Amino acid sequence: MAEVSPDVTENNGAGVVKENKLTIIACSGDLDRIWPTLILSTTAAASGMESSVFFTFWGLFALVKPGTRITGENWMQKMLSVMNPGSPAKAKLSKLNFAGAGPFMMRKLAEDYKTPDPSALLEMAQEMGVRLIPCQMTMDLLGLHREDLIEGLEEPIGAATALLEMNKASVSLFI
Amino acid sequence: MAEVSPDVTENNGAGVVKENKLTIIACSGDLDRIWPTLILSTTAAASGMESSVFFTFWGLFALVKPGTRITGENWMQKMLSVMNPGSPAKAKLSKLNFAGAGPFMMRKLAEDYKTPDPSALLEMAQEMGVRLIPCQMTMDLLGLHREDLIEGLEEPIGAATALLEMNKASVSLFI
Amino acid sequence: MAEVSPDVTENNGAGVVKENKLTIIACSGDLDRIWPTLILSTTAAASGMESSVFFTFWGLFALVKPGTRITGENWMQKMLSVMNPGSPAKAKLSKLNFAGAGPFMMRKLAEDYKTPDPSALLEMAQEMGVRLIPCQMTMDLLGLHREDLIEGLEEPIGAATALLEMNKASVSLFI
Repeated sequence: MAEVSPDVTENNGAGVVKENKLTIIACSGDLDRIWPTLILSTTAAASGMESSVFFTFWGLFALVKPGTRITGENWMQKMLSVMNPGSPAKAKLSKLNFAGAGPFMMRKLAEDYKTPDPSALLEMAQEMGVRLIPCQMTMDLLGLHREDLIEGLEEPIGAATALLEMNKASVSLFI
Repeated sequence: MAEVSPDVTENNGAGVVKENKLTIIACSGDLDRIWPTLILSTTAAASGMESSVFFTFWGLFALVKPGTRITGENWMQKMLSVMNPGSPAKAKLSKLNFAGAGPFMMRKLAEDYKTPDPSALLEMAQEMGVRLIPCQMTMDLLGLHREDLIEGLEEPIGAATALLEMNKASVSLFI
Repeated sequence: MAEVSPDVTENNGAGVVKENKLTIIACSGDLDRIWPTLILSTTAAASGMESSVFFTFWGLFALVKPGTRITGENWMQKMLSVMNPGSPAKAKLSKLNFAGAGPFMMRKLAEDYKTPDPSALLEMAQEMGVRLIPCQMTMDLLGLHREDLIEGLEEPIGAATALLEMNKASVSLFI
């Protein structure tokens, strides 16, 4: 009888076993990378997949408390203004269907639209069940502590644990 | 008897079932991202894998008709000139073997080389059986309609459907 | 009895079979992309996973001998200085735990820190069992020969073979 490792589930007949799960390594601080990261991870959660995001390198900046190091600039509007030239009014926003992720996201987005910031979008992800995980090594490199990061995050992990997450996930992406 | 979901094939013994398939999320409009996207997706098709590309965010610009919004600049030559300084003559191009994808691609490339544009390369991908899929949300954001995009594309889908594509694919990449 | 293809292991019951393996396509020459590529691939090797990196397009520059085309600038210190403002002294470096990849990496890093260059980090990856594979097409495009690249690499392969690597790997990433 094949013995199954608790960490990497693998049986000789079928190889590594994949769970219905999305894991993203969010390595970039660019707005047009954080945006698809949040859309994919929340859509996965809304579709019944497990969903986790590992924030590392520049990506970790998205988890730092606004008051701490990130200037309070309106990045969501900035993103929208680039992709949608003109005046980004509420009516315009209502055209977004966000991939059928449901009215919850729409309401939350519309509600937060007046004062959008990374925390708002990340909070939405958390409410939808996306696990947000900071990279321990990057925190060490930057001298960041848990209290510098937003609330509600998972315990920081390293690359080895992140690899275990990806090894079990049916979809793993580096963004 | 295990019941298999029609969308996400999953059995308890072996986890999510993976088909012999490549799915790429083409999120970038940069030439040096579109280029590997097309090489990988056509090579996969030539190797007998199913192959699909989901064009989203800046990546969707590659699917817009040249006459509509993209300036007709010679992007393939531009790319080649960056990677291959000197005069990119036909003889030089013949050194490209494109990963054994067969003479079809070579002939098509050589033939199109005088007037290369995104449509030509994408048409080649289509002829090799790569499914090109626009992102509905991005179309909404940009106010684009089907008639603004090149011919022969799949129906636009959202992130949830793209995730289902990736969940079945043996290789999923975010480029 | 199901016949198993030697290239793409697939059985009808469970789909494509995944091995406990990480394969990365290293397509970017940016330092903040090469860095996570090396951390993930060495951590995978240290965790008992098979680990391979396919260097293509700008990523291939990381494999060119320092004396040949890459200026001998201190890229590792440059990277560290960006991520860790201040004087990157040895004491600071000792805070890096590199995701539990073990003391081997730490010693090697500390040892190489005085004269770090791409070769040193890549050599470390090789010593940990990471397979480094150059892209044949990119070599052709750039007119590079094996003697222009650092020692200890695998034989160059094309996109079709790289896809086979990814098809077997439990985790495939495009970085």
